[in-house]
Amino acid sequence: MKIFDATKVIYEFKSGLDVIGEVNIGESFTVHCNDCFSQQVRHENDIISNIDFSRVNPATGPIYINGAEVGDVLKVDILDIRLADQGSIVVLPGGGLLGDLVNKPATRIVTVKDGMVDFLGIKQAIDPMIGVIGVSPGAKQDGVVTGTPGNHGGNMDTTDVRIGSSLYFPVREQGAMLALGDCHAVMGDGEVCVAGLEIEAEVDLKVSLIKNKQIEWPLLENDKEFMAIVSGETLDDAIYEASKVMCDLVERGLGIAWNDAYMFNSMFVDYKISQAVNPMKTVRAVVSKELLDFTKI
Amino acid sequence: MKIFDATKVIYEFKSGLDVIGEVNIGESFTVHCNDCFSQQVRHENDIISNIDFSRVNPATGPIYINGAEVGDVLKVDILDIRLADQGSIVVLPGGGLLGDLVNKPATRIVTVKDGMVDFLGIKQAIDPMIGVIGVSPGAKQDGVVTGTPGNHGGNMDTTDVRIGSSLYFPVREQGAMLALGDCHAVMGDGEVCVAGLEIEAEVDLKVSLIKNKQIEWPLLENDKEFMAIVSGETLDDAIYEASKVMCDLVERGLGIAWNDAYMFNSMFVDYKISQAVNPMKTVRAVVSKELLDFTKI
Repeated sequence: MKIFDATKVIYEFKSGLDVIGEVNIGESFTVHCNDCFSQQVRHENDIISNIDFSRVNPATGPIYINGAEVGDVLKVDILDIRLADQGSIVVLPGGGLLGDLVNKPATRIVTVKDGMVDFLGIKQAIDPMIGVIGVSPGAKQDGVVTGTPGNHGGNMDTTDVRIGSSLYFPVREQGAMLALGDCHAVMGDGEVCVAGLEIEAEVDLKVSLIKNKQIEWPLLENDKEFMAIVSGETLDDAIYEASKVMCDLVERGLGIAWNDAYMFNSMFVDYKISQAVNPMKTVRAVVSKELLDFTKI
Repeated sequence: MKIFDATKVIYEFKSGLDVIGEVNIGESFTVHCNDCFSQQVRHENDIISNIDFSRVNPATGPIYINGAEVGDVLKVDILDIRLADQGSIVVLPGGGLLGDLVNKPATRIVTVKDGMVDFLGIKQAIDPMIGVIGVSPGAKQDGVVTGTPGNHGGNMDTTDVRIGSSLYFPVREQGAMLALGDCHAVMGDGEVCVAGLEIEAEVDLKVSLIKNKQIEWPLLENDKEFMAIVSGETLDDAIYEASKVMCDLVERGLGIAWNDAYMFNSMFVDYKISQAVNPMKTVRAVVSKELLDFTKI
């Protein structure tokens, strides 16, 4: 199986980047991902304010998807996420929702063993996820640093981006130009302190294409649900845009009037916080697959 | 069992209201609740813009809880919510997140039969919940109309306020002065069009007291989770305040440093949107009971 190591990374999703390799439709491949600090935080005396911030949020890539053309949709199946045996979490003054209340930086190293994290003796099952995953925003949009989410994906920090999920991205540059990183062993919706349990990982993916299909924002499918993942300057901006996206999908998918789609959204769609700190905020609109099939829209 | 019918309602939670009756600690009782429109919307040609808005969001109460004193916590167990056989949902220009996109008002009547709602042939299981439930904000705070949430509860529109859940409210006036209404047969997190499936209901409750315990915002307990339910001018304000409340609970509950509590929140607490339209917004911070026991803090 083709392996992309973690030495070639980007810090901005933008058009025209040099590719690190290519994959074919239907081919499984492995992407090694640095942790979000490029492994600069290995001990509890590694203080976040002392690290090289130019190396924060590396994304391995971009990987060229053979056959992907502008106007297609790229589907990315997440087959596996294998974690390293330790991760880190940090707080720093000014960082996250309550950054104004943080007096001094702090680092915790958290072990991962037998599928459990151990934080100060508090043990919880791991729930591996990919924080940063996206494609080129295309030549018509500005580049976006890897720490920020957008309509190309990027730092969506969405807990549902886990093993068994599939993401759908709009292809805005030939080859799609996939890149990913910033995996977490565990994270709560909101990611309030601006970090999950940050950890190196090996990610197995498989890609496919839907030709000539327009989507504006990344979509996600798991065994039970479809969701639209939308970001904005504030949570209120993000949920406004997410509800527009979802009303449109419901209107077209179910063939009902827009007013009825709006009611459907209010009764049957859950709007969930992905992250509130990146600093663009991300909300996902979640609907049961029993009620709506995105793949038929 | 004592029954409070739906003829005596309030439209504002405030101190000094006349009570409609009293209950004892440990006593089960039934509260009949009008729907949020006081049953003014019964047919699809009942247009929302024509109804009497002074009768919107009635809450049955206030009910005096014998023995409740300022500085206690009132626990309210939700034993049952029995729904009428039809509900309504409306959209109107200016209403909800996408009110700017609504051209004309519309009403749908939705039947409830055999535990299922039927919206345009789309059938889904009911998930009955109480939209408005709260206590007096006390003499030191302004009154709050029943359509708005606050630190007294009120229009929290939180889907977890369902059968089997228990709410904890700060007692800020003698007798606590409980009132409730605005039940929904089904609602999505966000309540984006500003209505769930609005429906009359009979609610069975049981109350108890925790003496001399300070909480600032309503808390909720179900079989698996504890949560703090916090409202603010924006979703961003609400999540900021919710994370402060939750960091404090984690710090005291687990006896760990505040920085560690902040990390705990980022890894193990889910911040969820309750509603984004009331117009104060509500967020709940949700933690597994395996990790933190609110009742011991």
